[in-house]
Amino acid sequence: MREAYHEMLDAVSDDLVEMTRLVQSAMNRATQALLDSDLALAESVIAGDDAIDALASKVEADCFQVSARQQPVATDLRIIVASLRISASLERMGDLASHIAKAARLRYPNSAVPAQLRPTFQAMGAVAQNVVAKTGSVIATKDVTMAADVARTDEEMDRLHKELFTTVLSPSWEYGVEAAVDVTLLSRFYERFADHAVTIAKRVVYVATGEPYASVDPEAIVDSL
Amino acid sequence: MREAYHEMLDAVSDDLVEMTRLVQSAMNRATQALLDSDLALAESVIAGDDAIDALASKVEADCFQVSARQQPVATDLRIIVASLRISASLERMGDLASHIAKAARLRYPNSAVPAQLRPTFQAMGAVAQNVVAKTGSVIATKDVTMAADVARTDEEMDRLHKELFTTVLSPSWEYGVEAAVDVTLLSRFYERFADHAVTIAKRVVYVATGEPYASVDPEAIVDSL
Repeated sequence: MREAYHEMLDAVSDDLVEMTRLVQSAMNRATQALLDSDLALAESVIAGDDAIDALASKVEADCFQVSARQQPVATDLRIIVASLRISASLERMGDLASHIAKAARLRYPNSAVPAQLRPTFQAMGAVAQNVVAKTGSVIATKDVTMAADVARTDEEMDRLHKELFTTVLSPSWEYGVEAAVDVTLLSRFYERFADHAVTIAKRVVYVATGEPYASVDPEAIVDSL
Repeated sequence: MREAYHEMLDAVSDDLVEMTRLVQSAMNRATQALLDSDLALAESVIAGDDAIDALASKVEADCFQVSARQQPVATDLRIIVASLRISASLERMGDLASHIAKAARLRYPNSAVPAQLRPTFQAMGAVAQNVVAKTGSVIATKDVTMAADVARTDEEMDRLHKELFTTVLSPSWEYGVEAAVDVTLLSRFYERFADHAVTIAKRVVYVATGEPYASVDPEAIVDSL
């Protein structure tokens, strides 16, 4: 019984790692759809979000089942609650990838990203890939030292986010208000995506070390305007 | 023992209602600080966010304690998990109020909101007040019918959010790119604030009715661009 119980907890962990894989793929395709104005690719990201949501629901149902069947001790309870929150964050990361795909679709056949900012979004896409891949490793290995790596990658995203605002608000910005509004929201989606990864990594650290949960707010968007 | 256990669950519910009160006050002051370019008021919102975070941590600690001490049955477990998620949403709503206050501070002594959009942000502030007050009532009363009211209030916020984009993207917009970027983010903060309220109301419905949790994504920001 006790063994079956831990098997279920392992299955939940596997599902969370699988969610990071789906989210990584979604974000990769969303960035490509954005840069290439590829409508079919954008549609595939939007349609694929259901699979991420379904896996989040499965994690939630499994967590309930495992808790109800076997009375969890304090540590297991922490794992269960952390799993629920991690799943919610990953679901939200999938939503953000979907938002980026929707922006690409909205401006098709034009590009939502002016030529001048293509390198920035290319870099943001690469950092997003990187941060979610590392997050998957942290969940799979529970390696606390890797969590710091996730935070460092997030800092790179914040740097790009600030750089973008500098570009948009410079007097030489020549793409007008609509493009400014588009890239402001797009950049925020990437920035929030990386923030969620940091939140997840901190959750894993909390479970591994038992250190009290400190309120996590890794974003400082308005400060960076 | 069983009685003390339910007393603790009631205390958690009271703390969540208290969080809605703190968040409502924060949002009210943030909107006023934004409209009046009131630096001291903005600072009070930013400083006050710690109290909201502290209450969220208390709810989390209490939920762990109650789960560890007394083995929760399935219904109670749903309440505990819902309480944790509701507390996370309220904490995030506090963050959003704080972001609005930071935008007011950043542009002080100027206003982050051009004159033309003051009525829109005034209305958004009123709707935000309204939606969080209703959310508090839903948590306190567990009245499922009131949850629909929260969703209707959110629709009003979405309408204002769309209206703002129409204004910003119209050819007659005369406030330039920086103001466009500012109000785009500000409007998104208000819109996400109301989205979180809907998510909370849906969580309460889920606990009350036991109906399976459907993935909640009430926002459609990019669609509304």
